[in-house]
Amino acid sequence: MSSPVLIVGSIALDSVETPFGKLERAIGGAGTYSSFAASLVAPVRLVGVIGEDFPRETLDLLQARGVDLEGVETVPGGKSFHWAGRYEYDMGSAQTLDTQLNVFGDFDPKIPAGYRDTPYVFLANIQPSLQLSVLDQISDPRLVFCDTMNFWIESAKDDLLRVLERVDVALLNDAEARQLTGTPNLAVAAQKVLDIGPRFVVIKKGEYGATLVSREGQFSLPCYPLATVKDPTGAGDSFAGGMIGYMAWRESDSEDDLRQALACGTCCASACVQDFSLKGLEKLTVDELYCRYDDLQSMVQFDKLPPRE
Amino acid sequence: MSSPVLIVGSIALDSVETPFGKLERAIGGAGTYSSFAASLVAPVRLVGVIGEDFPRETLDLLQARGVDLEGVETVPGGKSFHWAGRYEYDMGSAQTLDTQLNVFGDFDPKIPAGYRDTPYVFLANIQPSLQLSVLDQISDPRLVFCDTMNFWIESAKDDLLRVLERVDVALLNDAEARQLTGTPNLAVAAQKVLDIGPRFVVIKKGEYGATLVSREGQFSLPCYPLATVKDPTGAGDSFAGGMIGYMAWRESDSEDDLRQALACGTCCASACVQDFSLKGLEKLTVDELYCRYDDLQSMVQFDKLPPRE
Repeated sequence: MSSPVLIVGSIALDSVETPFGKLERAIGGAGTYSSFAASLVAPVRLVGVIGEDFPRETLDLLQARGVDLEGVETVPGGKSFHWAGRYEYDMGSAQTLDTQLNVFGDFDPKIPAGYRDTPYVFLANIQPSLQLSVLDQISDPRLVFCDTMNFWIESAKDDLLRVLERVDVALLNDAEARQLTGTPNLAVAAQKVLDIGPRFVVIKKGEYGATLVSREGQFSLPCYPLATVKDPTGAGDSFAGGMIGYMAWRESDSEDDLRQALACGTCCASACVQDFSLKGLEKLTVDELYCRYDDLQSMVQFDKLPPRE
Repeated sequence: MSSPVLIVGSIALDSVETPFGKLERAIGGAGTYSSFAASLVAPVRLVGVIGEDFPRETLDLLQARGVDLEGVETVPGGKSFHWAGRYEYDMGSAQTLDTQLNVFGDFDPKIPAGYRDTPYVFLANIQPSLQLSVLDQISDPRLVFCDTMNFWIESAKDDLLRVLERVDVALLNDAEARQLTGTPNLAVAAQKVLDIGPRFVVIKKGEYGATLVSREGQFSLPCYPLATVKDPTGAGDSFAGGMIGYMAWRESDSEDDLRQALACGTCCASACVQDFSLKGLEKLTVDELYCRYDDLQSMVQFDKLPPRE
């Protein structure tokens, strides 16, 4: 009974080093992580571009999870997008060591005809002009999420503002929300993003959790506490995938369901960071999702004040 | 029906500058802020030291709120502790411009005989050896909270560890928890603090809220969202005062009540930062406390997942 989700984003090979290990050319990319997470609860249609070096097993794995790959273009003789980064002990933020756009440099998303009326759409972090091109190709979506990054806020702000005018849910981390709006207070920054156009803003705060903000109010959850975080890469993408996957599963666009979606996204992000590449998400079963979701509920549960004397 | 709270801490005159204004020699100090917050719901017994320069009106104001001042020593001819600091636009952390310990430099807390069996005790941020001296003077408290700061973690760690062995609830901000335990992961850091001795750790995360951690689990709340933060000075002290005041009001030491106490503390901290010195807390009525508390509850409310298909 779930609606499908259309995801447009990067499909990459990442070389990641953290205090817990090192992987060379492992599977990464915002499109990959978010598809992987969303496909836990909803069918996914993925649009992206890869080179001939991209491993067939990963495509098989995605398909086995219900990710339709008609929209994934393979460039003959091309090389996949490659990112290399290192996290220090605090796992706070990555230091980029190398970026090779390769086939991603010429990415021009073409939405297959059969995808154009997908009701749930996630525009993962790509150039805002490409996000606009996707919006021009789809018709009457029920709920569109978009993500972005500091680089586009600096270099393509006008296009990004046009994207934000046309989406329903804007995902930003705390630093990006401050940068975009020029205000340090997150409550104010979120309202300023709403003024641009989206009905909802989700502020991602890393280990401090996430907050959903609308004109009506806000909803906050802590992150799911973990004793070991092995690799934070893909946490935000897994979070977004879990959120939109949940909304598609519930076939909803209500604020109440977005709260539940945020909890689902939090669970997906926590699974992601427990291991390198897709290995953490692979271990997240629906049973485990229910389990972590219940944990999160109990972590914010508190009683009303007793009546005044 | 509330038990009294004993608070031992600084009573100061602060000169504070923020982008929203500047106050010279206004009322400050951890003992003052926490007493002010706790006295909203419980009678308070304050122990501290002031000089003859400390304004009589403030002492009257405290007494009018039910703060007993028998334990506040006035040093004849002495000058009160003075701190001067400045906050930049992001309000994240203060830059200390000047510290004059004055009479606080010789502070040697003497707990009046009538205070020694107070069931609820807050050892605000003072030298750990003085916190130990207070613990030696009191008998059979039901619940002892302590606060500290980076300076004591660096310069008096052994004494601080001895304090932590003897208290029930340790309050630390995120940076202090990491510094004390030498671990960046807050979930792990909190467990390491529990290993030292306290039954509960409260990690204060500023605008990202606060988390209560026990052996059984954790409880997190966001901060109360405010469009305007005028002066963050005293936020942590107001938070602690609100927490212990609530526990004394409820005459409880249970984990469930500590969750409610954390919500009360969050409301007190939010009122504190809305204006300079004690002006924000002065405006916090019990009605407004109930209001903000209800808001916080609705901000973390989300439904269970639907049953699996």
